[in-house]
Amino acid sequence: MDFPAELKRQIARVEHGLDRHVPAAGTRPARLHSAMRYSLEAGGKRLRPVLVLSAAELFATTAAYDPAADPVPAAVAIECVHTYSLIHDDLPCMDNDDLRRGRPTAHKAFDEATALLAGDALLTHAFSLLATAYAGRPALAQALVRELADAAGSRRLIGGQMEDLLAEKKADATPDELEFIHLNKTAAMIEAALVMGGRVGGAPEDALPALRHCGRSLGLAFQIIDDVLDATSDSATLGKTAGKDARADKTTYVKLHGLDASRRMAAELTATAQSALAGLGRNHAFLAALIAQMAGRTK
Amino acid sequence: MDFPAELKRQIARVEHGLDRHVPAAGTRPARLHSAMRYSLEAGGKRLRPVLVLSAAELFATTAAYDPAADPVPAAVAIECVHTYSLIHDDLPCMDNDDLRRGRPTAHKAFDEATALLAGDALLTHAFSLLATAYAGRPALAQALVRELADAAGSRRLIGGQMEDLLAEKKADATPDELEFIHLNKTAAMIEAALVMGGRVGGAPEDALPALRHCGRSLGLAFQIIDDVLDATSDSATLGKTAGKDARADKTTYVKLHGLDASRRMAAELTATAQSALAGLGRNHAFLAALIAQMAGRTK
Repeated sequence: MDFPAELKRQIARVEHGLDRHVPAAGTRPARLHSAMRYSLEAGGKRLRPVLVLSAAELFATTAAYDPAADPVPAAVAIECVHTYSLIHDDLPCMDNDDLRRGRPTAHKAFDEATALLAGDALLTHAFSLLATAYAGRPALAQALVRELADAAGSRRLIGGQMEDLLAEKKADATPDELEFIHLNKTAAMIEAALVMGGRVGGAPEDALPALRHCGRSLGLAFQIIDDVLDATSDSATLGKTAGKDARADKTTYVKLHGLDASRRMAAELTATAQSALAGLGRNHAFLAALIAQMAGRTK
Repeated sequence: MDFPAELKRQIARVEHGLDRHVPAAGTRPARLHSAMRYSLEAGGKRLRPVLVLSAAELFATTAAYDPAADPVPAAVAIECVHTYSLIHDDLPCMDNDDLRRGRPTAHKAFDEATALLAGDALLTHAFSLLATAYAGRPALAQALVRELADAAGSRRLIGGQMEDLLAEKKADATPDELEFIHLNKTAAMIEAALVMGGRVGGAPEDALPALRHCGRSLGLAFQIIDDVLDATSDSATLGKTAGKDARADKTTYVKLHGLDASRRMAAELTATAQSALAGLGRNHAFLAALIAQMAGRTK
């Protein structure tokens, strides 16, 4: 398998899906739809939607194209939710960031009210898309909505955000609080991506716990590596401001456990994710290579 | 039928459902769940959820209690979406309101970030609840998610908000723009309430257009009456600041068409709603009385 070529192919499917399954910028209300697309088109790694597609391919058969088994709408839905969470995170009342991936954040490019509404609309659109694209398989649509809404909900994604904000106001977060934050703020959506992909691809129910376990480990590793890179990389390599955590005296894995232990934890979690994946007994070469790439990333 | 007693009974079902189907204030993260409940418990007319329940009763048979046919979760879901839209509307970057129903708004009682996240979480919870409570009827769950997500989405509820914000910045909105705003900002969710209730109650597909037509007319009438009351009532009666529209030189039905014509339009739309309802040929005494009460309301 040619990993870079395959990754490029998967990302192209995501980009095409985003264009196809999100309202066009010119449709009424044009300003709102423009803001939604502006943020979606800011790029990024497309990690979560690529995970959806590759998890679906673990299970998909080579039968004729079936729109009801197309994982692209599920991939787009999860990227809409991820993008909404970034837009709202960047708002002045949250992290107050002016730049995201080198471009002005949504509230800078438009205004705060438009950014707020664009985030709301992307979140809402994710559920509309799942319910519409999989209308022909209502049990799948129901399961996908439930999976995504739970991962993005008050106990997980939003809960992680909330505790992250509260932790910033305290002198020190505990290891337990830090794990709660990262399990929910980061790992929840990565878990959901793999499980949703598996469901669309027709994974048997008994394969879902392994996908979930893989996603949870991968998500935690991803966040720890983020912490390590913030502490060790420079802004030019990272494409965003480095050293922010230390300057803000933010509690991170690096601050709590040190650099070496953090790198070791990330490596162990990555190995756990790989073995959960391998345990499925499917052709998982692409997903394994993607996980390895994530573990070795420098930005 | 004793209308006040029946209305009280329906509202009690909604209140009980809100308590049962929304995370408890003390569960982690407690601050987030407290903020969600604070706003949900602020009261209000509970119009949308009562419409869900009463539309379901138009079609429900008197068979034994079936949790998969219980309209309460759908009613709670629509109230969660309505409440999220109020929380985000009240934020400083939107209408910047400090009071709602006589109590401090969520960002005043908590803070802006918590209010933002509580709104996000209520919106997300609505979809989780529909997918969970109706898991035993996946086609119903899928249809309800689609109905609610479309009504709350970028072309309807959020679209109406967006155009409302843009209209405020212009000297004058046109009648067409005003109708777009109200059809989407107000009528969309009232339509969805009746259609969702009908679906849960087992309405045949061919009854849904009449429910939608009823909701659309009712929603527009509701908004025009709001405009009339803002222009003619006092703050004490209204329970909120009266005369706000005129002071802000906001384009309303009253400003565009005058008081008499606005009252006439509201009466005509109410009559349209009543005849759409009557055309269903069901026992609609409660819903008809509710519509009549809405048309005659003084706050």
